[in-house]
This record gives sequence, structure tokens and C-alpha cells, in this order.
Amino acid sequence: DQAETKGGLKITSDDGNFSSQLGGRIHFDTYLFDPDIEDPVSTTEIRRARLAVSGQLWKWEYKLDRDFASSGTGGMRDVYIATKVLGGKLTIGNFKPYRSMEEMTSSNEITMMERSFTSAGGIYADRQRQQGIGWHTFWDCYTLGVAGYNLRDPGGPRNEGLGASSRFTWAPLNDSLSTVHLGISGSHDNANRDSDPLVADVTYAGRRGPDQLIALTPGDRSFFVEDFDNDDFFFGDQGGSVNTVGLELAGTHGPLYAQAEYVYGDFEGDYFLSEIAFEDFFGAPPSFECDPDFGCYIGGQDVRTWYVMGSWVITGEHKPYDSKKGVFRSVKPRSGWGAWELTARYQTIENKDIDDLEASNVTLGVNFYFNPRVRFMLNVVLGDDDFTGDETDQLAFRAQASW
Amino acid sequence: DQAETKGGLKITSDDGNFSSQLGGRIHFDTYLFDPDIEDPVSTTEIRRARLAVSGQLWKWEYKLDRDFASSGTGGMRDVYIATKVLGGKLTIGNFKPYRSMEEMTSSNEITMMERSFTSAGGIYADRQRQQGIGWHTFWDCYTLGVAGYNLRDPGGPRNEGLGASSRFTWAPLNDSLSTVHLGISGSHDNANRDSDPLVADVTYAGRRGPDQLIALTPGDRSFFVEDFDNDDFFFGDQGGSVNTVGLELAGTHGPLYAQAEYVYGDFEGDYFLSEIAFEDFFGAPPSFECDPDFGCYIGGQDVRTWYVMGSWVITGEHKPYDSKKGVFRSVKPRSGWGAWELTARYQTIENKDIDDLEASNVTLGVNFYFNPRVRFMLNVVLGDDDFTGDETDQLAFRAQASW
Amino acid sequence: DQAETKGGLKITSDDGNFSSQLGGRIHFDTYLFDPDIEDPVSTTEIRRARLAVSGQLWKWEYKLDRDFASSGTGGMRDVYIATKVLGGKLTIGNFKPYRSMEEMTSSNEITMMERSFTSAGGIYADRQRQQGIGWHTFWDCYTLGVAGYNLRDPGGPRNEGLGASSRFTWAPLNDSLSTVHLGISGSHDNANRDSDPLVADVTYAGRRGPDQLIALTPGDRSFFVEDFDNDDFFFGDQGGSVNTVGLELAGTHGPLYAQAEYVYGDFEGDYFLSEIAFEDFFGAPPSFECDPDFGCYIGGQDVRTWYVMGSWVITGEHKPYDSKKGVFRSVKPRSGWGAWELTARYQTIENKDIDDLEASNVTLGVNFYFNPRVRFMLNVVLGDDDFTGDETDQLAFRAQASW
Repeated sequence: DQAETKGGLKITSDDGNFSSQLGGRIHFDTYLFDPDIEDPVSTTEIRRARLAVSGQLWKWEYKLDRDFASSGTGGMRDVYIATKVLGGKLTIGNFKPYRSMEEMTSSNEITMMERSFTSAGGIYADRQRQQGIGWHTFWDCYTLGVAGYNLRDPGGPRNEGLGASSRFTWAPLNDSLSTVHLGISGSHDNANRDSDPLVADVTYAGRRGPDQLIALTPGDRSFFVEDFDNDDFFFGDQGGSVNTVGLELAGTHGPLYAQAEYVYGDFEGDYFLSEIAFEDFFGAPPSFECDPDFGCYIGGQDVRTWYVMGSWVITGEHKPYDSKKGVFRSVKPRSGWGAWELTARYQTIENKDIDDLEASNVTLGVNFYFNPRVRFMLNVVLGDDDFTGDETDQLAFRAQASW
Repeated sequence: DQAETKGGLKITSDDGNFSSQLGGRIHFDTYLFDPDIEDPVSTTEIRRARLAVSGQLWKWEYKLDRDFASSGTGGMRDVYIATKVLGGKLTIGNFKPYRSMEEMTSSNEITMMERSFTSAGGIYADRQRQQGIGWHTFWDCYTLGVAGYNLRDPGGPRNEGLGASSRFTWAPLNDSLSTVHLGISGSHDNANRDSDPLVADVTYAGRRGPDQLIALTPGDRSFFVEDFDNDDFFFGDQGGSVNTVGLELAGTHGPLYAQAEYVYGDFEGDYFLSEIAFEDFFGAPPSFECDPDFGCYIGGQDVRTWYVMGSWVITGEHKPYDSKKGVFRSVKPRSGWGAWELTARYQTIENKDIDDLEASNVTLGVNFYFNPRVRFMLNVVLGDDDFTGDETDQLAFRAQASW
Repeated sequence: DQAETKGGLKITSDDGNFSSQLGGRIHFDTYLFDPDIEDPVSTTEIRRARLAVSGQLWKWEYKLDRDFASSGTGGMRDVYIATKVLGGKLTIGNFKPYRSMEEMTSSNEITMMERSFTSAGGIYADRQRQQGIGWHTFWDCYTLGVAGYNLRDPGGPRNEGLGASSRFTWAPLNDSLSTVHLGISGSHDNANRDSDPLVADVTYAGRRGPDQLIALTPGDRSFFVEDFDNDDFFFGDQGGSVNTVGLELAGTHGPLYAQAEYVYGDFEGDYFLSEIAFEDFFGAPPSFECDPDFGCYIGGQDVRTWYVMGSWVITGEHKPYDSKKGVFRSVKPRSGWGAWELTARYQTIENKDIDDLEASNVTLGVNFYFNPRVRFMLNVVLGDDDFTGDETDQLAFRAQASW
């Protein structure tokens, strides 16, 4: 059989029935904070240290990807088996539900060090990978993915929560010079029995910086304190649902690239918190009048988040478009001297139903590609939390290899 | 050197002194419960996500198998080095002591989704793999294994507990049409200093369903509450031992297969529990008279468990017999359309010294083999706990790949 | 591309731009104690169960090594990317700072089952690998390494502690019969914000035996109890630093080998403990007068540790010198019958500023090398803790394979 390496291990059988490969990635980060009201600890961190084994077993394929930078069973990433069904790929196991262009982009290929608020780093907080069944296909300039899943990742509690998502993309223009990408996705997550709460939550000043809770739909676990005499009560309906719809617009022209997403989320709610509990959760006193006896009422919450991001590859390379997945990939340097890319992003997320509950940031960055598999990233994150008034900033550096 | 893949990675040196291979398995499950008195949470689960590296170093071999579906050091499975001694394989490290045909069968090859009560899923609860030394051989139609071990797996506490086990099998008939298998095994486990309790415990309504403690021999850790004024006391001798003996009878004839085991266990005991503690442990009030002052006395406990299991491969394939290990293997489909197998099992376990302390279930199932490495399983488990009266049932589904 | 195995998996690309390999090690131990004042639990243990993937990506290389015998993110070992800079190897990520010959020696190659007190098993306790940047080079008979790092390993808390270390070695004589090695190393560790305490701590009676704290420089975490009315107070300056300097002298002549190191450490301190807190930390009452109100004062602490270790390879093999790293390697047996090595070590560590705070041990051992990749070790450790008076001993056995 045939052995091959591009930095990993790969063997393919001569009859084409089998293959197996071992890949991985190391992302090593340094975070330095310029504190404001919040004062996070600067540190280094192994952001990702993953080994992924994938292969082919006749008409089936498998993937088992483990991140050693996460503890316990929660360190499992893609763990699934898949096969071709109706011209698409049917996936069974643990994988990312199809939603948000930024979420669909590999962490090896994202433009900034952390994904935007339209991902599991914001409006889909803690719901990056879920366990279930998915189907994904592409044709011409279109891609379509649909998924149904249990509302858990391998590190979360067993529960009866259910969700569904779908994403459709169209690239009306896609040639060697220019690409235009349009996309739409939607999801419904229902926190049934024993589900964790569904939240929108952002670390607006970069990884390991302060976080701001934007919206919360109660899950269905022992979470509520139903005693009004308690200063810290939390009372109301359990097990709500969250519906989201997202729009994508992106494109490249030569060395220029721009990408924008808008996601609207409807977080169900019908609960009361004491003012103390409110401040515990949201980090600041309520911006609205609370009832002295029954506390602060939170009903349905409209969440809106959007970002616009762009880059210019100084060394002239063009960011390729992956028309099978409907996402952009990283630059591949043309010369032995590597490629330089300047990057910028503005993003914001707000809860329209609670005054001032909004966080945003500006990120400016430089990416240097030594070669197609080794990248250094520098990001300056200017954080802004309107609810607490905090404006902590971060300087972040990443050394990255993938194989 | 020679590279090879059957879905994994394998390289063998030309001189025959070295080899190395990377294999693995993914078992992805869904459990739906029909509750009765107990009301477990339905859920999905990555049941197993294992990577195993094994190889040859001149006259020695090694194996390192890690299950990422388990947290921490307890996720280690086979971790050993081995060599040929006296015509057998001498194993040093973490491995399964030789006892119970069902336990010796790989999780990739078991007939039902979960092993029977004659395994670490019942009478040998939490004692699947232990650390020590073993020797295993086979000749003609016989196999013999003996093991001595420290009573711990890598995730358990360090302790001075010791055990020994042995298994002998005989296949008086074994040709391409029919096999008859007979086996006997025995073990002695002694919970010395700092050992965990030795228990028989079953989840009678399928994985993640309710469990029933059947017998308990105290270990030797801070476990007892020796205050009789306490409502929740537990008092008596620590560090007892458990002796077991098991019998195996199994066979195939064409597409038909049947397998049965009987295991008797003698769980040492000499302790008193308050009625509250008894109910905490056994899930229901004592079925016998307890002393108002000294509580419920539990002495030696006779545990008996047996199962009978069978299958019919509709598509006609014959279940092969592994005469080196003395177990049956999975069907390998003959056609590109896969193989279908209907399965059924009845099993029961009881403590003869405590009235009504018995649990049993009936499992009916269908296995579909897409190919020799991808299998789907459907099990209906009809649970029955005589002690609590609970009759929770489960519908379970598994998607499985191994390589 | 080219596939290769010496017990692991390796593939090298024909163009020389890429390679990847999967190696690993299993160390399986048994510890039996002869207790004295302390009475540790005898046990077996998987000491190491590591898989390591490393490879080349054009001019960069990577390594990702995970020990499954440790839980969580703390199980990460070497996780870095590296490239050639100025004739040396520039390493970014998680690796061992350059200090102490014994620490620099691979656990596959150490002479005794556990490293000496001059390593992370003593004066550099819990600081084996740190996250940062290093540069290492060698020329002729010299090696030089320098490292700057954040004071954390992947399992420790995020913190702003910083450290730096350097090591220089010289082998004035190095031929096929004899080697003489000289070395010097130094380090500065500064426990800034949120750092753990910096300690010198030894398990003087072998792994899993009793430990003796030798010195402590407070870190900067919520560690102090500042209430003098509390019987258990601990009060003073946080976030001190530790400076060390170490000397190495080693050599071989035919089948004989000797190695010695001396490390002096200056542990900053300026704190008061109650007598109860002192005994909690140091295992025995203070050996000096404490103030009845303000407790026992601990200022700067001079720590001295040294060992002398030797071996005689009965079967005549010569221990090779790795002149690129400045360490000795294991014997490689010449014959198919393996190699036998007798070993001995005396080591001691003391805090010069607290009377009697000294621990030492004598280790006598036998190593048997079946082949270059399989080794059995037997160690007898005669422990001696002057501070508590404990003289617990240990008999330890290891079965080891690496590939």
C-alpha cells in the first residue's frame, strides 16, 4: 500500500478501499492584557493541541479528533462516522451543526485568533459541536447542510434537549481573481429535560479576558432558587428554546478579502431574578426597574450580532475559496519568504430587550505565513462592554502549526 | 519497510523485527427510555472513542489503548508489554484478567450493545482491567489463561488489594459448519488496604439506566460510619474477599449461534447498616428484619448470575470462532449488501442471601453489518428489578466503526 | 514516500520536506514499602503511557507528546514547534527549560527509576516543563541552551510568573572508550501574579512514598490566612523568586559510569506561619523558636542538593554520550542475551536555614536491557528524613518499553 506524508502520516490501500491518516495541530498563544475595570491575568496557553485520525473503510469514513488542550471527555472534537447518501455526506456522531460561516471555518484557517460573536464564541456559546446526524452536499456554486442533534457535546451533561440547523450558501462569482459568497443559516435549539441553559456570551477582550453574558434561556437542570426570601433567587419557566437566523456576505478580489455576518437570535425567557442574582449573572446592576418583591423580570430576548472583517495580503496572494464547504481558506504563500496579511474586524452583540446590554470590539492584526502549515498571528483586541463600562484591551500572539 | 492499511496505519519492517500499527474504534449510541418507577434521562453518548497503538520490538510487543470517552487516567484500556514465555504470551501491565467468556470478547464483537451480567457489567463490577501479570496460551482446541494482579485499574485509588484469576476453554467440535465451546473460569479478589469495595452491580435497563446493587464486600477505605447514633451508620469488618467460579457453554451451527454462562460468586461480608443506609445502597427498604439498635446485618452473600443468548444470521453467514482466545467473533458479511443478524438474550443476577434482591432483563436486537468494520445495532432492553419493582425499558441504537 | 518502523510509525517524503512519526513509551511500576514512621500504600502504577507525534513541515518541526498516565491538560509533555535560527534550534511552546543534567535526560534513559533531587523531583519541584521560548545549540564538544518562560505548565493555573534558565556543557574528553562531561546551569523563577508557590520538595523513599517539603517561596494566589487569631495562619509577602545554580561532573570509562550534580537554590521568603501551619507544611514541629504571637518566621532559604551516581555494566557495554544534548544515554545491549547494569546513587537535599530540614536516600539497583527498547529496572531505596526521623524504604520494579 502507499505511504505518504505532508507532515502527518497517511497510508492508502492499493485497491482504494482503505486509507488512514494521522494529522494534528498546535496553537500556542500568549495573552497580554491592558486592564480597565476588569483586570484579567496575562498568560501563555496551549490553545489547541490536537491529534486527529481519520480514514476510509470501504464506503464509510471515520474521524476521531481529540484536543489535549481540553480536559476529560469534553476534549473530543469531530468524532463521527460518515458515508455517501443521496449525493451528500451523511454524518453520525459529534460534529459542528451547519450554521455560521465563521463557525464552519477551521481554526487553522480563521482570519483572527478567535472566531467572531456569530459563532460558539458568542450567540451559540458552548454549542460548537453537538451529537447527532447531519447531511451535507455541494453542487456547482451551492452548498447545503442540515443537521438534527441532541443538545450536548461529549463533556456536557446527558439531556433530552434537541436541536436542528441548516445552512445554504451560494457563490454567484468564483474565479481565480474574485469570489462573491452569500449564505443563510438557521437553527432551533430546545433545552428539554436536564439541558444546560442556552446562552449568548462573549469574551469581548480576547481569549481569557472578561466575559459578558448577553442572553440566557434557562435549561432544565437544578438551576433555580425558588425562594423569594432568598436574596439570590432565580425563578421561572425552565427549558426554553432559542431560534436563530444568520446571513453571510463575503468576497475576495485579488489580495483583498472581506467577510460579514449578521445573526439574529430569539432567546425564550420567562423568569425573575433578584437584583443580586441579576448582577451575578450579567456583571452589573439591572438597567431597568425591578419589582421589590418579585425581582427583575426577563422575558423573550432579541439578540443581534454582526461583524465585518477584512484583510489585505501584502505579498499579493489570493485567499482561496472552498466551494465544497462554502468558506474561505488561508492564504498559501507563493514564495519561500512567506506571506504577510493585514487584518481588521469590528463586531458587536446586543440584547435588544435589556438596555445597554451590548459588547463590541475592534481587532487589528497581522498574520505571517511561513509556509502553508506554519502561521504566526498577532492580534490587538480593543474591548468594549457597554453594560459594565469595561474597556479592557488585549495583545495576543499565536504560533501555529498544522499537519 | 512495508506500509499497509485496512482502515488503520501499519508499518512492518523488512527484517521482521519491528512493526507498529494505529487502530481505533468509535461507538456512538442513542438511548431512549420507557420509564417506570425509575425515570432515567434519554440521551446520546459517545460510548467508545478509542485509539490503540501496538507494535513489536524484537521479541517483545506492546499495546497502548486509550478511550477518549472516559476521563482522566481511567480512560486507559490495554496498556502492557508482552513476550513469549513457555509457549504462551506473558503480559505485564493493565489488561483483562482471564475470566468470563463475555468479558473476553472485544466490545467490537459482542452480540448485544452491552455485555451480560457475568462481566464487569455485573458480578465483576468495576474490575474489567486490572494491573498485573498474566500468561495465556492455546493448543489444539484448548486455551488457558492465568493472571495475578493488584486490585486496581489506572483510574482507581492506589491500594494493596490482590487478585488472581484463571480460565480454561475446550472446543470439542470446531469445523467450518459447527463449533461447540466449553469453558470454566475462577477468580479470587482480596480487598486489602485502601481497596475500593468489591461489588456486584447491574444497570438492568441498559446503559445509563437505573442500577441495582446486588452484593457488597467492603473495601478498606474510609467508608464506614461507625456511629450507631447516626441514622446512616455502616459498621463492620473491612477488606473482605470475593471468590467466583464461572461455567461457559456455547456453540454455532451454520447461521445459528447460542452462548450461555453461569457465574457463582461468594461475597464476604460481616457488617451492619442502618435501614436508611441499606436503602441508600440497595435502593429499597430491607426485605428482612433488622435490629432496631444494631441495624441490618449482612454476612457472606451468595451471588448467582446466568444468561443465555442466541442469534440467527438471516443472510446466512456463520459466526467465526477464535480458537486462540476461546471466544466467538462477529459475522463478516459475504456480500456487498451487508449481513443481518437477529439477537436475543435473557439474563438474571440474584443475591441468594437477601430476599428478592434480583434483577433480570430480556434484550431483543438486530445487528446490521455494512462491512467487516462498520456495524449498526438496535437493542430493546426489557428491564426488571425485583427488589425495587422497577420495570424500566430501553430502546438503544449504536453506530460502530473499528479499524 | 518512505515508510519505516523501529517499533513506531514513520513516513518521510521523498523530497525531504516532510516527515512524521508516532512513538511512545510504557513504564509500568510496582512499589513495595517497608514503612517506618510513615506508612505509604504499596501499589502498582502505570508510571508513563505516552504517545508522541513529531514531524517536519519544510523548515519547521513540531512535537506533540501526551502522557495518558496523567489526567487533564497536565498530561501534555513536549508540545512545541521549532525551527533553525542562528545555527541553533528555536523552540516555542511547552518544553523543559535548560537546567540540570538529570532533568535533561529522557525518562527512557535515566539510570534510576526516578530522577535525582536536582530535578523537578526535588529543587525544581513541579516545574519540569514550562511554556515559553528556548534556543539550543551544540558545536564540537559544547552545548548551550537558553530559555525564557511563563511559570506554568499546561495543567497549572494561568499566571504572570516568569522565569529564565541557561545551561552550558563541555566534554573535554569524548572518545569511544571514555567521556568526561562538565556542565553548569542557572535559573531565575519569579512567582508573579497568580503563580503557584515555588517549592523544593522530595519523595525521599521513592515514588508514591512520603514527601518532605524542603523550602517554600510563596506564590501569588489566595494561599495565605492572614488572621493571627487563627491557629493555622500563614502571613507575609507573596510572589517571591528563586535563583539556582547547578554544577555537573560526569564521565564514563568502558563499562563504568559516574555522574554527580550539585545545585544551590536561593528561595526567597518573608513570612510567618503558626506552629500548626508549620507542621502542616513541613511534617514536623519547627526546629527553631517561634514567636508565641507572630509565629514562626521564614526568610530567605538556602537550599543545597547533590547526588553522586554510578553504574557498572556487567556485560561490558559502554554507556554512550549524546554530545548534542550533553547527557548520557542508556546502554544498548551487544548480544541477543541483553545487558546487565548494577547501579547506585546517594543523594541529599537540605535547607540550610532551618535546622535538620534535610532528606537523603541511597538507591541500589539493577537494570536489565532485553534489547535497546525494552528495559527492566529494580531499585531499592533507603529513605531518610532527618526532619521527621522517618526512614521508610522501598523496593521498586519497572517494566519499560519505548518505541
